[in-house]
Amino acid sequence: MAAKRYLMTPGPTPVPPEVVAAMQRPLVHHRTAEFRVVLGRLLERLPEVHRSTSPVLLATSSGTGAMEGAVANLCSPGDRVVVVSAGNFGERWTSLVEAYGCDVVNLRYEWGETPSADDLASTLADSGGATAVFLTQSETSTGVVAPIEELVRRCADAGALSVVDAISSLGAVPLETDAWGVDVVVAGSQKALMTPPGLATTCVSERAYAASERASSPRFYFDWARTRKAQDTDPPLTAFTPAISLVFGLAAAVDLILEQGLDSVFDRHRRLGRACRAGVKAMGLELFSPDEDRSAVVTAIRMPDDVDGAEVIRRVGGSHGITLEGGRGALAGRIVRIGHIGYVDVFEVMAALVAVEQVVADLGGEVERGAAASAALEAFGGEAVHA
Amino acid sequence: MAAKRYLMTPGPTPVPPEVVAAMQRPLVHHRTAEFRVVLGRLLERLPEVHRSTSPVLLATSSGTGAMEGAVANLCSPGDRVVVVSAGNFGERWTSLVEAYGCDVVNLRYEWGETPSADDLASTLADSGGATAVFLTQSETSTGVVAPIEELVRRCADAGALSVVDAISSLGAVPLETDAWGVDVVVAGSQKALMTPPGLATTCVSERAYAASERASSPRFYFDWARTRKAQDTDPPLTAFTPAISLVFGLAAAVDLILEQGLDSVFDRHRRLGRACRAGVKAMGLELFSPDEDRSAVVTAIRMPDDVDGAEVIRRVGGSHGITLEGGRGALAGRIVRIGHIGYVDVFEVMAALVAVEQVVADLGGEVERGAAASAALEAFGGEAVHA
Repeated sequence: MAAKRYLMTPGPTPVPPEVVAAMQRPLVHHRTAEFRVVLGRLLERLPEVHRSTSPVLLATSSGTGAMEGAVANLCSPGDRVVVVSAGNFGERWTSLVEAYGCDVVNLRYEWGETPSADDLASTLADSGGATAVFLTQSETSTGVVAPIEELVRRCADAGALSVVDAISSLGAVPLETDAWGVDVVVAGSQKALMTPPGLATTCVSERAYAASERASSPRFYFDWARTRKAQDTDPPLTAFTPAISLVFGLAAAVDLILEQGLDSVFDRHRRLGRACRAGVKAMGLELFSPDEDRSAVVTAIRMPDDVDGAEVIRRVGGSHGITLEGGRGALAGRIVRIGHIGYVDVFEVMAALVAVEQVVADLGGEVERGAAASAALEAFGGEAVHA
Repeated sequence: MAAKRYLMTPGPTPVPPEVVAAMQRPLVHHRTAEFRVVLGRLLERLPEVHRSTSPVLLATSSGTGAMEGAVANLCSPGDRVVVVSAGNFGERWTSLVEAYGCDVVNLRYEWGETPSADDLASTLADSGGATAVFLTQSETSTGVVAPIEELVRRCADAGALSVVDAISSLGAVPLETDAWGVDVVVAGSQKALMTPPGLATTCVSERAYAASERASSPRFYFDWARTRKAQDTDPPLTAFTPAISLVFGLAAAVDLILEQGLDSVFDRHRRLGRACRAGVKAMGLELFSPDEDRSAVVTAIRMPDDVDGAEVIRRVGGSHGITLEGGRGALAGRIVRIGHIGYVDVFEVMAALVAVEQVVADLGGEVERGAAASAALEAFGGEAVHA
């Protein structure tokens, strides 16, 4: 009998049985009424997850495809843009805007730092404005969740469009797209949306649509106008053959999220983050991601100097069947990341913590034994474990 | 109890139980050894399906994404290119190269005509050469399978790169990528590869790679160099988070295809095409797609003048549970298309034929009753129904 496996990375995340079941129904053609009803319901409900009234465009791709779409639809070669980067995914924005020939001003932080709205305001003032500012809500490589509301306000003050990578945060931490005035939000199916990877979403404000009509970068598959036109058909269509089985899955997942209620889902993620940090602190290890309620997506743990984080990942994966992630770039070997996004409960977080505790001890790292699990459950609080 | 459903469109196509089972295994992270072993095997075997030794690049997208990738990786704005078009998907090449600012010379045929190598040679001579020629092997909108070997030879003669959309034909009709000297082949998971939509493949020759290094169009998600670099890692990786469950499915499907043997699979498609055409002729309806062995992907039937093809599609779908496709563009209402690609057997083709027969008769069309099914089985020939 195969051992149980725990997928505790910051994406892909575990898929609930309801979503697995939805994906298993026999394939139907994407132009049948049967499919279009499901697509229509999904497109109607996705804006709710964004707290927006703007349409959400669906693409069959990873989140990066939707990121590229945002760049291609908003920018023309030579446009000045600002990228706020404090980790691997911020750097992806930089690579993208460079590929599209933008004049990029980088507001770069050390990996692990939290971007500041004041810094952004200064950067925008110094650079004489920008077409768009590219932001990362949850920097998955470090666990830092940026203060998006404040950052976006500074974009608006400077007349720049705000584009937010919410790939690992949508449905995990609050993102008030309309109330905060976010122009574009990109996300992916495989994080808090609890569906296997393969679908990407882009919530586009009317202001951003208007800007896209002036942008001259070539685009086709990720073209917003083409996608919107298809989705505006009644009942809706996709511009190209979609990942049909994943659309069934995502529709079921969004139903689960909205049935529980978005605020309740945010609260659960907050409590999972608290639980994970409490466990880390109880075992005497140092947190790399900030010790604050916003750190509700992934917890990054700094490894003791004499312990190789990559080896911890290997051992926890091999002997305990728990998949965690290590550090990227300069953080390789230095941190271990536990994802607690989507269909994850506090007992799984406890399992990850105690496995890390044991392996770090085995590798000669100084760690307090036996305290993490109960500290985590205590910090999770409440009676209902899943709600 | 739900009625059985038959998906008889030219894509998406029915998914074999082995592929469904493979997609159902719990999600694993795409950087784990577990996933990379499956990816490695898939990437090793996909060239066999192309009859090529060139690497096959994998993208999470529909086939159109890979088509756009071919344009973006090969072309610079202003490049002269030739598009050979005889239907909806040929026109897609035109839209794509126009979006990328190419100087396009169209060799356009009426929908339903078969492109000719001599015409292409003249076009290339008249236009003073081209960077690339964009071709469609199986024009899904009409059922016409083009003489790719001859067309590609004329591209080589003129020093132009040949790019073949084999989305609905790869694994259904012969495509000898290396022997015929095809430079680029794009395909999708949801046709003869018997997997749900969401993965696209691009087989790229060394000559095409070299050309891509000189092409200046912006690209990132579909960038060949980025994809190849990740796939060349040992064991292989993907450049971006892939549609993990679909990769499991496609790997299982490619195993099924190569286990049966590619020639045997081609033969089965040829016989299914023969069966379908024999049935159409037996009921006295006119074939729209050519009555030749190459027509092994989809059979297009011309409707009697007084019968609305769209209504036939609706009735066959509604009362018989068989999903067929109608005509696009000027062919809307004029043709009915039966797909026989991938995991389809002759009895399903018979079901589609007899359902069409009944519905056309109900709509007052002149049709011979009772002859189609046995004519189809007879034309299929052989003893083994599946092999």
